[in-house]
Amino acid sequence: MLKIALAQMEVIPGHPDKNTAKMQDMISDAVSQQADIIIFPEMAIPGYFLGDTWEEAAFLKDCVAYGEEIIAASKDITVLFGNIAVDWEKKNNDGRVRKYNAFFAAQRGKLIQPDNMPYPFVIKTLMPNYREFDDTRHFFSLQKLARELGTTPDRLISPITLKFGDRRYNVGCLLCEDGWSDDYELTPLELLKRHRRIDFFVNISSSPYTLGKNDKRHRVFGKQAQEAHAPLFYVNNIGLQNNGKTIYTFDGSSTVYSAEGAIAACCPEYQEELSMVNLGHLSQLPPVAIPEEPEIAHIYRALAYGVHHFLQNINMPRVVIGISGGIDSAVAAALYNRVLGSKNLLLVNMPSQFNSDTTKNLSRKLAENLGCHYMVIPIEESVQHTIEQIEGTPMEDLRRHKTGKLTLSPLAKENIQARDRSARVLAAVASAFGAGFTCNANKAETTVGYSTLYGDQAGFLAALADLWKHQVYELARYLNEVIYGREIIPQGIIDIVPSAELSAEQNVDEGKGDPLRYPYHDYLFRAFVEHWQKASPQDILEWYIDGVLEERLGCERGTVEKYFATPKDFIADLERWWNLFSGLAVAKRIQAPPILAVSRRAYGFDHREAQNGSYYTRKYRKLKEMLLQG
Amino acid sequence: MLKIALAQMEVIPGHPDKNTAKMQDMISDAVSQQADIIIFPEMAIPGYFLGDTWEEAAFLKDCVAYGEEIIAASKDITVLFGNIAVDWEKKNNDGRVRKYNAFFAAQRGKLIQPDNMPYPFVIKTLMPNYREFDDTRHFFSLQKLARELGTTPDRLISPITLKFGDRRYNVGCLLCEDGWSDDYELTPLELLKRHRRIDFFVNISSSPYTLGKNDKRHRVFGKQAQEAHAPLFYVNNIGLQNNGKTIYTFDGSSTVYSAEGAIAACCPEYQEELSMVNLGHLSQLPPVAIPEEPEIAHIYRALAYGVHHFLQNINMPRVVIGISGGIDSAVAAALYNRVLGSKNLLLVNMPSQFNSDTTKNLSRKLAENLGCHYMVIPIEESVQHTIEQIEGTPMEDLRRHKTGKLTLSPLAKENIQARDRSARVLAAVASAFGAGFTCNANKAETTVGYSTLYGDQAGFLAALADLWKHQVYELARYLNEVIYGREIIPQGIIDIVPSAELSAEQNVDEGKGDPLRYPYHDYLFRAFVEHWQKASPQDILEWYIDGVLEERLGCERGTVEKYFATPKDFIADLERWWNLFSGLAVAKRIQAPPILAVSRRAYGFDHREAQNGSYYTRKYRKLKEMLLQG
Repeated sequence: MLKIALAQMEVIPGHPDKNTAKMQDMISDAVSQQADIIIFPEMAIPGYFLGDTWEEAAFLKDCVAYGEEIIAASKDITVLFGNIAVDWEKKNNDGRVRKYNAFFAAQRGKLIQPDNMPYPFVIKTLMPNYREFDDTRHFFSLQKLARELGTTPDRLISPITLKFGDRRYNVGCLLCEDGWSDDYELTPLELLKRHRRIDFFVNISSSPYTLGKNDKRHRVFGKQAQEAHAPLFYVNNIGLQNNGKTIYTFDGSSTVYSAEGAIAACCPEYQEELSMVNLGHLSQLPPVAIPEEPEIAHIYRALAYGVHHFLQNINMPRVVIGISGGIDSAVAAALYNRVLGSKNLLLVNMPSQFNSDTTKNLSRKLAENLGCHYMVIPIEESVQHTIEQIEGTPMEDLRRHKTGKLTLSPLAKENIQARDRSARVLAAVASAFGAGFTCNANKAETTVGYSTLYGDQAGFLAALADLWKHQVYELARYLNEVIYGREIIPQGIIDIVPSAELSAEQNVDEGKGDPLRYPYHDYLFRAFVEHWQKASPQDILEWYIDGVLEERLGCERGTVEKYFATPKDFIADLERWWNLFSGLAVAKRIQAPPILAVSRRAYGFDHREAQNGSYYTRKYRKLKEMLLQG
Repeated sequence: MLKIALAQMEVIPGHPDKNTAKMQDMISDAVSQQADIIIFPEMAIPGYFLGDTWEEAAFLKDCVAYGEEIIAASKDITVLFGNIAVDWEKKNNDGRVRKYNAFFAAQRGKLIQPDNMPYPFVIKTLMPNYREFDDTRHFFSLQKLARELGTTPDRLISPITLKFGDRRYNVGCLLCEDGWSDDYELTPLELLKRHRRIDFFVNISSSPYTLGKNDKRHRVFGKQAQEAHAPLFYVNNIGLQNNGKTIYTFDGSSTVYSAEGAIAACCPEYQEELSMVNLGHLSQLPPVAIPEEPEIAHIYRALAYGVHHFLQNINMPRVVIGISGGIDSAVAAALYNRVLGSKNLLLVNMPSQFNSDTTKNLSRKLAENLGCHYMVIPIEESVQHTIEQIEGTPMEDLRRHKTGKLTLSPLAKENIQARDRSARVLAAVASAFGAGFTCNANKAETTVGYSTLYGDQAGFLAALADLWKHQVYELARYLNEVIYGREIIPQGIIDIVPSAELSAEQNVDEGKGDPLRYPYHDYLFRAFVEHWQKASPQDILEWYIDGVLEERLGCERGTVEKYFATPKDFIADLERWWNLFSGLAVAKRIQAPPILAVSRRAYGFDHREAQNGSYYTRKYRKLKEMLLQG
């Protein structure tokens, strides 16, 4: 009976030396446990999100050489693993060397060739080219290869045969997206089944964490195993990989699906593990129950893991957070504190004349609760100096030989405060503390650029920028109730009206604050960004007219009526935010810090955008006219 | 004899209303000039670089509706144009609606169907998916369609037939990359020829400007026309389009290639034009001579056009530039001054104790030469206040109930100056002046992050960030000699040693300055970034050992010997910059302003990267060991 080891390893992107060393260790471990087969994730050697590092020939050669070491290490155990495969004789469509995202099977020091393949490896067939995925940019697909060879993909897709003594196993090998074929014109799994009876399937993946994805995978992959009457081994890596602007955690969650479609074994999220299963026992195992947890528990786990690993990757042991007495910075503080420990955390409160005693006291209370480092650095003197210097310095017109003066608007003065806090104080404090300072923006602010560039938008990481405001509140409660088990974030911070406190118009003690009405705007903005079929003003207006807006957005009934007395108000609000979302906010996001992704659409590389200004369709303009006349 | 109008229009991305209005105007104009055919560029209605706006169904419907207006406008003239085509019944591989990058031919108010196509339009076959191009992300290719229909691309690719009176013309229709098939497995142009004799080819494009691309196109497309014995009409748009981080100018340069392969007509760069040619006359026309110009003339034209249009697009009529007395800010000032006029330009000199009279005087001299607005805002007082405030404010340890103090390092104090200038002074001055402030970084600095985040790296646009330092100097001379015809940039600025003047160690009067040795590092970094086969430290070391480094990099002979006495020095320098290039500089580029692209590899969307840290291959480590022992 085959003993199979699932190697849920941390893959470090762009560091084949470290990944190979880890694989060697896990192979030794599996051999010592008498495993027959060990399965590593997709792209286990190079990592998956590497930007255009795939264009460096020396890097490719290095990955291939490390791959040969792993093949050589298959003397006492069959090793299945993902790596880049290079055909130096052929080219990709960009004129660079031919690269495949490949699945290697090595036994007794040699590669096993799939039945009908021209190469001794399996080639990824379905290439994701949406969201954060860029597979087609670098990897040549099986479909293209088939066309080049004058054949069709169904003739090439074939199982590999593994021999153990007298027994032969037909193994169906899949790479990640190959198992998610719903919207593709071919289904690799079905094509594999046509050839011969498959003894088991292996799907090696490098699948970033997305809220809700695991539940869906259990349904889809469980069904695949059941319909094929064959177990399916899904092996995913853990770790952190990024596309520059967007950072993804990889949760592992490697799973064995029995031939009955049940979950026979499941590795824990975000933990490196070598998990052993016996092929023949799978159907007898009691199905693993996946504990039901609230969404926010998953989100917290992803954020904590992501922050921890990101800090590790960039060698940043300490963190500075500007603390305002508001909810976003408080949640960031509680999160980082948990990850780093209070001795590595410095909170800085930077009051101006507009900051209330309420928020100043709440800031201090939070810092006391955490027991971290704390500083109060007022900005009033510096802000006044800036205003006086700019309004007081003569501006010469050297053509007309005249001299004038500049005047700062109220909004300009608000932005001076925000930049004074981040670019002047926090950046300098962080370097003195041997730290980076965080950006605490949430997704609603990020959507419409409700922040100051080089001010509160600055930071080394925006850990909360993929969370809507209501999720930030949920996270605050979760941190208090579950993670800390006490009121670490003062209830006053949770209860206070959200406000930037940059002018007398934003006085929290008078209940004044942000122009965003989160119970509505969170959901409106989500429709712009996260809906798979993206909503734009035309859709919003159509839903509004049809009376189905709240249902479509997923916000509470009565919300629209509560905030907007007339269609004119509704339209003015819609256009205000749409103009910002597709205008100034794009410019701000271009210069925003990296964002930690948890949703199925995070800003950055996942949500590509151009600085093209806002646009309203003709139909929108007609509907608007109709509404305003009616 | 057919009279053909080339409509070299400005396409405004994401604004089908404006583009359609422009097309209607050009159609009227062409009709009044008795043209038989008018040819518009690829994606003339929606624009080409739209990020993920392609996912908005309302936008797609709008583009289709505008396309129908253009089809209806073909009553008196045959209209060839590019637009998005949508098949609402089918899906793309991302599960969203099926979209094609399509070529429409409309005659007498109706679409002409290509001979063997299932749709009444031509589908782009070759989909660029390298550099800044993302075609495969949104557009379904002809190859995929062929597979879906159970046929092959060569059966679908077919000409359209245009009737004029009794005469029928077989027209071979291509979309941009279809004409650049060298690295693809099929050649649309060859497949078109197999069907029938082609009377003429039309390649509609949306092809961003890249230094040297036009010369290559004349060779490639001229040869295509010659070999096919048929004229080829290349129609490209003008305008500015962006992918967020990277901004591209489109130069038009629409060209008619005669059946002999000569350039029979050529539209000017960056100008909207309706150009008329007679099909039958092409071979009699004297070949158009393309004037030979130095590279820097092309670069200047692209930059001036790009800056002008970008400012227009974001409604920014005025600009503020921090002026140091160094070369980069001086070139930026001379460039923006030319684009905006001196009354819309404000130069701000912000001296600290480390700025020499030399650079202060040069700054003033430059401003006087330009005759623009000028301010001197010293930063010393503010910088001192920041240092005192941060070093003087107690830092409480709330767990241990202790109080400590922070200390700023010399480097931290340099960064405080840089941020004080940009985030405190320039940002506030710009808002008071009704302007944005520029980032003047060049490509060498951008490569290794030799700049301060929220300091000199900040700005609304980095117009020079795709120029190596030696190109910035060339541009300075070109501005003086050709554009202004006088010494607008003082010779002292061109002659002075490049220096940040942030400490006593960077005293320009003592000839001290940047750690970058541009005559070598410009070329080393170019090999990292711009070489089609990207060089990494392993390649550099191999070339160094083989004595071919200068030749491979393209820098002057003797450069390596001049700067590096020993292999140890050479390696230390290589690793210093490689570590920065793939480490901290990536983090900085993530938050950098948009970059105006001119080279064949600009930072941003064109050069995708992950924050993965530096890596050295095993071979590199061996070579290094060998060199250091030897």
